[in-house]
Amino acid sequence: MEYDVKDLSQAPQGAMRTEWAEREMPVLRSICQRFAKEKPLRGIRIAACLHVTSETANLAATLRAGGAEVVICASNPLSTQDDVAASLVHSGIPVFAVRGEDPDTYYRHIEAAVASAPHITIDDGADLVATLHSKHTERLDQVVGGMEETTTGVIRLRAMAAEGKLRYPILAVNDSDTKHMFDNRYGTGQSTLDGIVRATNVLITGKTVVTIGYGWCGRGFASRARGMGAHTVVCEVDPVRALEAVMDGHKVMAMNEAAPLGDIFLTVTGGVKAIDQHHFQAMKDGAIVANSGHFNVEINIPALENMAEAKRKPREFVEEYTLEDGRRINLLGEGRLINLAAAEGHPASVMDMSFANQALAGEYIVNHHPQLQPGVHVLPKEIDRQIASLKLNSMNMSFDTLTDEQERYLASWQLGT
Amino acid sequence: MEYDVKDLSQAPQGAMRTEWAEREMPVLRSICQRFAKEKPLRGIRIAACLHVTSETANLAATLRAGGAEVVICASNPLSTQDDVAASLVHSGIPVFAVRGEDPDTYYRHIEAAVASAPHITIDDGADLVATLHSKHTERLDQVVGGMEETTTGVIRLRAMAAEGKLRYPILAVNDSDTKHMFDNRYGTGQSTLDGIVRATNVLITGKTVVTIGYGWCGRGFASRARGMGAHTVVCEVDPVRALEAVMDGHKVMAMNEAAPLGDIFLTVTGGVKAIDQHHFQAMKDGAIVANSGHFNVEINIPALENMAEAKRKPREFVEEYTLEDGRRINLLGEGRLINLAAAEGHPASVMDMSFANQALAGEYIVNHHPQLQPGVHVLPKEIDRQIASLKLNSMNMSFDTLTDEQERYLASWQLGT
Amino acid sequence: MEYDVKDLSQAPQGAMRTEWAEREMPVLRSICQRFAKEKPLRGIRIAACLHVTSETANLAATLRAGGAEVVICASNPLSTQDDVAASLVHSGIPVFAVRGEDPDTYYRHIEAAVASAPHITIDDGADLVATLHSKHTERLDQVVGGMEETTTGVIRLRAMAAEGKLRYPILAVNDSDTKHMFDNRYGTGQSTLDGIVRATNVLITGKTVVTIGYGWCGRGFASRARGMGAHTVVCEVDPVRALEAVMDGHKVMAMNEAAPLGDIFLTVTGGVKAIDQHHFQAMKDGAIVANSGHFNVEINIPALENMAEAKRKPREFVEEYTLEDGRRINLLGEGRLINLAAAEGHPASVMDMSFANQALAGEYIVNHHPQLQPGVHVLPKEIDRQIASLKLNSMNMSFDTLTDEQERYLASWQLGT
Amino acid sequence: MEYDVKDLSQAPQGAMRTEWAEREMPVLRSICQRFAKEKPLRGIRIAACLHVTSETANLAATLRAGGAEVVICASNPLSTQDDVAASLVHSGIPVFAVRGEDPDTYYRHIEAAVASAPHITIDDGADLVATLHSKHTERLDQVVGGMEETTTGVIRLRAMAAEGKLRYPILAVNDSDTKHMFDNRYGTGQSTLDGIVRATNVLITGKTVVTIGYGWCGRGFASRARGMGAHTVVCEVDPVRALEAVMDGHKVMAMNEAAPLGDIFLTVTGGVKAIDQHHFQAMKDGAIVANSGHFNVEINIPALENMAEAKRKPREFVEEYTLEDGRRINLLGEGRLINLAAAEGHPASVMDMSFANQALAGEYIVNHHPQLQPGVHVLPKEIDRQIASLKLNSMNMSFDTLTDEQERYLASWQLGT
Repeated sequence: MEYDVKDLSQAPQGAMRTEWAEREMPVLRSICQRFAKEKPLRGIRIAACLHVTSETANLAATLRAGGAEVVICASNPLSTQDDVAASLVHSGIPVFAVRGEDPDTYYRHIEAAVASAPHITIDDGADLVATLHSKHTERLDQVVGGMEETTTGVIRLRAMAAEGKLRYPILAVNDSDTKHMFDNRYGTGQSTLDGIVRATNVLITGKTVVTIGYGWCGRGFASRARGMGAHTVVCEVDPVRALEAVMDGHKVMAMNEAAPLGDIFLTVTGGVKAIDQHHFQAMKDGAIVANSGHFNVEINIPALENMAEAKRKPREFVEEYTLEDGRRINLLGEGRLINLAAAEGHPASVMDMSFANQALAGEYIVNHHPQLQPGVHVLPKEIDRQIASLKLNSMNMSFDTLTDEQERYLASWQLGT
Repeated sequence: MEYDVKDLSQAPQGAMRTEWAEREMPVLRSICQRFAKEKPLRGIRIAACLHVTSETANLAATLRAGGAEVVICASNPLSTQDDVAASLVHSGIPVFAVRGEDPDTYYRHIEAAVASAPHITIDDGADLVATLHSKHTERLDQVVGGMEETTTGVIRLRAMAAEGKLRYPILAVNDSDTKHMFDNRYGTGQSTLDGIVRATNVLITGKTVVTIGYGWCGRGFASRARGMGAHTVVCEVDPVRALEAVMDGHKVMAMNEAAPLGDIFLTVTGGVKAIDQHHFQAMKDGAIVANSGHFNVEINIPALENMAEAKRKPREFVEEYTLEDGRRINLLGEGRLINLAAAEGHPASVMDMSFANQALAGEYIVNHHPQLQPGVHVLPKEIDRQIASLKLNSMNMSFDTLTDEQERYLASWQLGT
Repeated sequence: MEYDVKDLSQAPQGAMRTEWAEREMPVLRSICQRFAKEKPLRGIRIAACLHVTSETANLAATLRAGGAEVVICASNPLSTQDDVAASLVHSGIPVFAVRGEDPDTYYRHIEAAVASAPHITIDDGADLVATLHSKHTERLDQVVGGMEETTTGVIRLRAMAAEGKLRYPILAVNDSDTKHMFDNRYGTGQSTLDGIVRATNVLITGKTVVTIGYGWCGRGFASRARGMGAHTVVCEVDPVRALEAVMDGHKVMAMNEAAPLGDIFLTVTGGVKAIDQHHFQAMKDGAIVANSGHFNVEINIPALENMAEAKRKPREFVEEYTLEDGRRINLLGEGRLINLAAAEGHPASVMDMSFANQALAGEYIVNHHPQLQPGVHVLPKEIDRQIASLKLNSMNMSFDTLTDEQERYLASWQLGT
Repeated sequence: MEYDVKDLSQAPQGAMRTEWAEREMPVLRSICQRFAKEKPLRGIRIAACLHVTSETANLAATLRAGGAEVVICASNPLSTQDDVAASLVHSGIPVFAVRGEDPDTYYRHIEAAVASAPHITIDDGADLVATLHSKHTERLDQVVGGMEETTTGVIRLRAMAAEGKLRYPILAVNDSDTKHMFDNRYGTGQSTLDGIVRATNVLITGKTVVTIGYGWCGRGFASRARGMGAHTVVCEVDPVRALEAVMDGHKVMAMNEAAPLGDIFLTVTGGVKAIDQHHFQAMKDGAIVANSGHFNVEINIPALENMAEAKRKPREFVEEYTLEDGRRINLLGEGRLINLAAAEGHPASVMDMSFANQALAGEYIVNHHPQLQPGVHVLPKEIDRQIASLKLNSMNMSFDTLTDEQERYLASWQLGT
């Protein structure tokens, strides 16, 4: 078996960590138990380009329990948990991922995943799909479908589909309510704050925290920052979202106005250069800048490099750039997803739902691919309801069911005032 | 001019109140100014079945500024502000609405609005549409379109459309983001709490407040109740929403479990009998029960009447029912929308956006009705963005604009890690 | 029996309202039941200068159950609930209080209370004590002690004591933890926001709300304003409190900076001219200004009167002042306690604890006055614990008790790391 | 120079970390600058038994800048940052502290500090004072005073003083408002949550988090846990605090009731066995148990050891105990202060104020010790105000000053309604 991980001897620690995560993943566990009996993925080869974490290890185990052969490569050079990668290899799953790998290695690892001749692809950011469509079109005929985990990837895929370039159906797992409403909001909210605190150990309360982008991730982060006592500011390009931020209690302003006020800045736009050269020029001495969007292009790091007269590393995940006038800007985690770079990514409890969607999406593709056109699709709402029910049960929380009379009432229109 | 209001001598007070609301309605004001110049509604007769409040008076003025003839009837027997009704009549707009009117009068008033032979209908709960379609089908040919303000009305209209009964196009103003995300959430959140406090003067902090239904209204109310210190419980039938409530920090349980725990219960389901006989049987002595859903059927009041051995009115908007075993249940505002019954409805600032949507929807129907099929439609997103921009400007808040580079990035898919 | 109330025929409504409040006052109820048996106040005449509300009616009933003769006058010209005053008179308690009385009547009513030759005085703002010490020193020998309800009164009494002018012992009920930590914080927080909303019906979320004074009342109000979505600003003269406000998540600035930013201003300083002429000059058009401090001197209303070119009353509790340049300032409730002027004062549930302190303080004075020196005293902590325990029991909440081992541990110092 | 640290070669990293902390300590910095000029501690030997962290390194530098000779030992076996210890030694300050040292070494290190013949002691938990008073009474005559940092230490010292055993004056730095209101509340709140998240990576939202002890630390932690979405429960022995917790929006119950409901438990009582054997017996499978009180006696770990059939370490700071019936209890950080064990202790920004109090307390003792009796004293309020002013200035926040008229008003009592 081919693989490329850092150190196989870390496998026992990775296995322990995977088991720890599993406790918080009751929904995926119940799917895993059913898959083990029913083997809905028998004979299917899956190439997964994902953050190689303890939660991903549980997804891989579930897919394998369902009968699939799984190969994994990293979806981000900085997010691999090397011990987990080792334990996956130890359990017989080929993994190509080393924390801190350079761009060449990163793409070589994606090539290795492509080489497994997958029937189904799983992406977190669409790098695997993009590689297949640009360099390995010969393999496309074999692929029956794919899944995409994150907003950024879905934006890319929709752009591909709009150009008529996307050659197979992809389920936008991100667009399931039980994914983006939970993982992106509560998962990113907590883990991004966690990443910033681990990287800097600064007190959040009393600080002005600027969130750039008020999608689900931004909503979650801004809400949690305020929950820790921050004075929150939101920057947005969509006026409806901007207004929602105002009503949620945040100050809203253009980034030009926010730049001189913020103590901590976070980008979660899914776009590019949300923090640009002229923003750095306006920032306070000591400003802290981080990103939790998928790619490390949301902060214009090359511009910062150019502006800086000096650079050093006061803490493991902090790079301090000193500008000509002496002001210091602290960039966290090289501008990569700070919740994965400096912390451990989303807590298992939210990944439970995201990866339950992945597992059920895999089964869905196997059962429905002949009816699915190339393009971006969403999972049926019934799967959302099923996942949410399992999750609530695992928390010992119950919900109501409509009575027949209530159902009839909702379907009628004659009854008025 | 025919009309039916309580007391014309209250017109000056109603005019003052309308002017007070107008200050908080800058978006509607700017539309009114444009309408006054462009007269996009010239020659159009509009029948509006709405809560007759100071905000509605500003909408009526805007429609009239646009050239329309407007007739108004109440959309709820308890929500009319009699002084505002008088001032509308005084300004030349026929109004048929008296606070506290009985059901016969209520429907007679709707008939009066129908008799104006409208081209466009505006509804808040679909009673006018339902009356037209069931009793005055002869008038339907004249109608080019309509607007619906609230969730309950949209549910009814979709049911009509599903049965093939809806005979003209209706814009679901409720479904505009600048309507339901703001009016239903922040407007209902504040004004419902306001209604409960005005009705009872109880301290909210430390109380267990049960929200039944976690749609936009329920989210808003539960959030505000917690903002006042309540211990919040949410009951839901949709597991995805139930799970969202958990993650938002609320306790979630079935209504059977919540019934004996709650101090205050609020229904906002859009359905029927969300609080039913067996729930009353489980409640604590002194429990307070209120509704903020559109119709007064969410609480099973007939059941409560049957169960009660005695009934009295300790405060203006409180009816105390004493059960056989001595427990007392306090029903607020006869189970009608408590924010309108005991308080003044949504603050003008949110109605500003809701009614900006109404005004622009009217213009949209005039311009596009030949292309619109009978059925329920939503307004283009561009109108949402325009309304939100105007609102932000009025608050002196600014937002960002995508640069060309950022636009290009979002439209591309080749750029990856 | 002499008395002066507005309309005795309102007595039944006042009695109903008093009974409604009584449900939320379980601690006072249990004291009332004990007093009825033990008669600890037998033969004592009490003159009480208090807000004449339904909660005060329950205190009066408790004192009378304990054997006291009680006479009541208003502690604020605008806070009397006339129906409650009527029901008190109907039940045999002389009351001198008419809502909206002028200053002369106000002081004539205090004189009437003084004329009852009290053994114990109860004050809310120290007007009764000040009248006794300045105009009726002949009555001082008869007085064995008194109680003071509010911060402002305690400040005045401490100033009197510092000058050696205070002639009898007064229990600062305000300084009991179960009073100021609850009544001043949670009571003022909710009821002040309630007063502002009833007076204006404005949406709180998205507004900039400036709290001037961050004592217990200010903390409560700022916290609740934020709970409703406001952007909160705090102004303070004590840097420690100012810093606490920062860490609690509020913006802190000098009032000069806040004046042009605020949409709503609230004074709760216990001082004078917290909002002064130069602040009005800097405010935005439409600014709303209210007070919840004891006296109506916290806002410099004479200055505003001088600056204004016009004045009118758009709503019952709103006076709109138009300045020379056209800007409008809206003063609420004539600058008097807005929670009493436009709403109903503190909810019964917090007054329960405040008035439990009053009742037990009365008993304490009867039992201990020979040992108490003239001056300001506080109640023993044991009374706080007793009141809090009763309150928790009434809410079905339990707390822990230290084990013997835990007691011993806390008393020892040898045990270390 | 004698010392005992882990690895001197880590000094550069420790220096960098100390510099990082210094940026967030502007108050201490300004005191350091004044001390460097005025040398108020010239000739004074100080023995400090503190958590050896980057913030402590800045305090040591300040004391030394003031002219003192400083020796440092650890106040907790698990809280030493070895790199900081190395950098302190490198800068010439003797340190006796190794992370993870056993109890014998811990006390040997205290002995080394005692051996420096201090004039002033600094404690965090009173172990140094206790050692001096029990084993080195011969050194007591030389000591002119001391400072104590934490609640637990102050409780011990008050117990010593009550027994007449305390032989020199000690300033309870903990009792300064700028210390306990900030460090204990906001510092412990954030850093304890940080410690729990780093130790477990669990999602906080939706979890039931039980805080045992509602002092300043408990208030801070419960508030931040709720800010992250937790369902919060508070257990208390003081009914007044319990009631405050209710009004702050937390559920309150006895620990017996909370034990089966909690997902995460935190002790911050300052006492012993707040979580005892019978509580473990009632807990859910997977319950997480942590302590942030000073000593590791708040959780009855020996009882847990006895109950367990198996024990292992799934993550670095988690010990999993498996009970007879298969339930697993996860103890974090061996029951020691979790914010120091698994995270980095209080953020520098709050330690800034705590250690500014320490530095000024040292100066105060030098200047006033002849007038201070043996016993526990507090710093004058003026020092609090000075520290808070400096802190606000460093945040660019301003506060108001009373005008002469306002001062006069507050000192007068004649002015009434």
